[in-house]
Amino acid sequence: MPRTTLKNIAQAAGLSTTTVSLVLNDKPHHISKKKCQLVKDLAIKMNYRPNRLAVGLIKKQSKNIGLIVPDISNAFFAEMTKGVEDIVRSNKYNLLLCNSNGRNNLELECINMLADSSVDGLIITMSPESFGAKEQLSLNALKSLGLHAVIVDSFNEINQFSTVSIDNFQAACSAVEYLISLGHKRIACITGPIGPKTTENRLNGYKYSLKKHNISYNENMVFHGDYHYQSGYDAVAVLLANKPTAIFCLNDQMAYGAVKALKKQGLRVPDDISVIGFDNIFFSQMVEVPLSTVSQPIYKLGEKAAQILITELTTKQKTQHLVLEHTLKIRQSTAKINN
Amino acid sequence: MPRTTLKNIAQAAGLSTTTVSLVLNDKPHHISKKKCQLVKDLAIKMNYRPNRLAVGLIKKQSKNIGLIVPDISNAFFAEMTKGVEDIVRSNKYNLLLCNSNGRNNLELECINMLADSSVDGLIITMSPESFGAKEQLSLNALKSLGLHAVIVDSFNEINQFSTVSIDNFQAACSAVEYLISLGHKRIACITGPIGPKTTENRLNGYKYSLKKHNISYNENMVFHGDYHYQSGYDAVAVLLANKPTAIFCLNDQMAYGAVKALKKQGLRVPDDISVIGFDNIFFSQMVEVPLSTVSQPIYKLGEKAAQILITELTTKQKTQHLVLEHTLKIRQSTAKINN
Repeated sequence: MPRTTLKNIAQAAGLSTTTVSLVLNDKPHHISKKKCQLVKDLAIKMNYRPNRLAVGLIKKQSKNIGLIVPDISNAFFAEMTKGVEDIVRSNKYNLLLCNSNGRNNLELECINMLADSSVDGLIITMSPESFGAKEQLSLNALKSLGLHAVIVDSFNEINQFSTVSIDNFQAACSAVEYLISLGHKRIACITGPIGPKTTENRLNGYKYSLKKHNISYNENMVFHGDYHYQSGYDAVAVLLANKPTAIFCLNDQMAYGAVKALKKQGLRVPDDISVIGFDNIFFSQMVEVPLSTVSQPIYKLGEKAAQILITELTTKQKTQHLVLEHTLKIRQSTAKINN
Repeated sequence: MPRTTLKNIAQAAGLSTTTVSLVLNDKPHHISKKKCQLVKDLAIKMNYRPNRLAVGLIKKQSKNIGLIVPDISNAFFAEMTKGVEDIVRSNKYNLLLCNSNGRNNLELECINMLADSSVDGLIITMSPESFGAKEQLSLNALKSLGLHAVIVDSFNEINQFSTVSIDNFQAACSAVEYLISLGHKRIACITGPIGPKTTENRLNGYKYSLKKHNISYNENMVFHGDYHYQSGYDAVAVLLANKPTAIFCLNDQMAYGAVKALKKQGLRVPDDISVIGFDNIFFSQMVEVPLSTVSQPIYKLGEKAAQILITELTTKQKTQHLVLEHTLKIRQSTAKINN
């Protein structure tokens, strides 16, 4: 069954297409109430839907918002996306979703594609590759296309765009200080790829807290992972050479991998070694040893980003930098040092 | 910085807007090669992007594809969405994402919103509420809007739309027969909400396999959950009254809940009781007892749905019903019955 057009309604009503168009676009000057009602009734009965493409072109707004994430199949971004989508739809916008697959060149492609579709604005979590000169490429693309954008969970020091994130430095400090409070001094760290501010801020929080408690920093206690499960698993064999009593993982997925590898090595978590993660994704309560972790308000990060963007689009409000609260979620993967 | 317009390029080139428009729309009749090159160079230099809204209106295609899922924060749909997005983008379409939150009325709202945005077609996994008369409401909406649609993981008996799924009946049979082969006869089942074909087919597979092996069906051995973790957890207290030696869960998340509740009751999985799931989401290898489960090709379900839709949009190919292979993934949550 083809889609109902203005012409179909006009034929059914015995009126001109122009008359029908005027009524349905709320400009029914000089048209009788009776005819107006007839057209409106038929529109509902025949399930007529206006063409937003045409409306958007006239109003110079598409009512589309773009979202670029590194990987939607990652539980963190899936939950964040839910937050974005709930707000976007309740404000009658559509959400266009793009994965950058963690690559800067694909991120640029996504930005251009979304701009081509005349999104009114976009929300982006930068790919792990997008730092330094590559970060600048993405920011320049956003600027040159004249796009409103909100950056989530990545950069705290961008003036021209709004940002939403937690304080990654302080959050890392709280995790490490918790381990120290349990008596741990030999604390290893599994990081993500070095470069992006998020990772750097977390790593700096780790270093700062060690120093604050007069624990000397040992670079052999740091393993550079990639935020995936396997790299957490692989890190353990390397780190154990330095006999850590606790491991701070810069995300939960790597923590799952670390716990699994420790078990394989015959070490008990938390009796022999403590593990703490970062993010508190949904599954962290369900894994073999329910994970102690830094809890980010993941859904809320998405929700707030969408609210800020829509406010920017509909009012003249300037950019803002929102820092959401983190908490420590202590479960069963951390314990007092076993002497 | 505002977005580059045809007028900006015309000014920079010292040419008319019409000339620039002709060149950039690949209709450069009677325009010198030199001028063409100048315009193209400036377009790149000034990062000019055509307005797809305008192009779409003329060509009567938006190059937008819609995707409606019950809940993007659910790991199953997140992975499926990744499969859809990869194909959609590599074919130069945009993906518009909508969550129905598992509700039929929101699903209808999503369908209408996507139609209003003139999506060229859409991919949908029906909400658990959309069966019977409500299923018909959604199907009628798709039909009345003249939309191409591919239905994933839900309905095998729809003629007017293409479908992609596994054979849920056979997949359930293979899980239950595996338990029977381990010596289990007292096999409980935790289902999703009753109504949708997917759930019904799995439940029928369970019943069929019991009957085939002369095990009488006992409705007290069946608990109707809602596909969420908590309902798997809650099911255990009820089902244990009938002393099952194995539990078949119609998805993995409920299986995680069941395993957790069994542990709390002091029962060991799989020594005292076996648990098998359905889906094989990414986390099933990481949970406390790595989960034996029916493995669906989740990413591929999304990938194939997108391929079928794009083929329908670009060729005159008719609807098709694709059934993908499932496999049994045996991990550590199932064992021979302990006599």
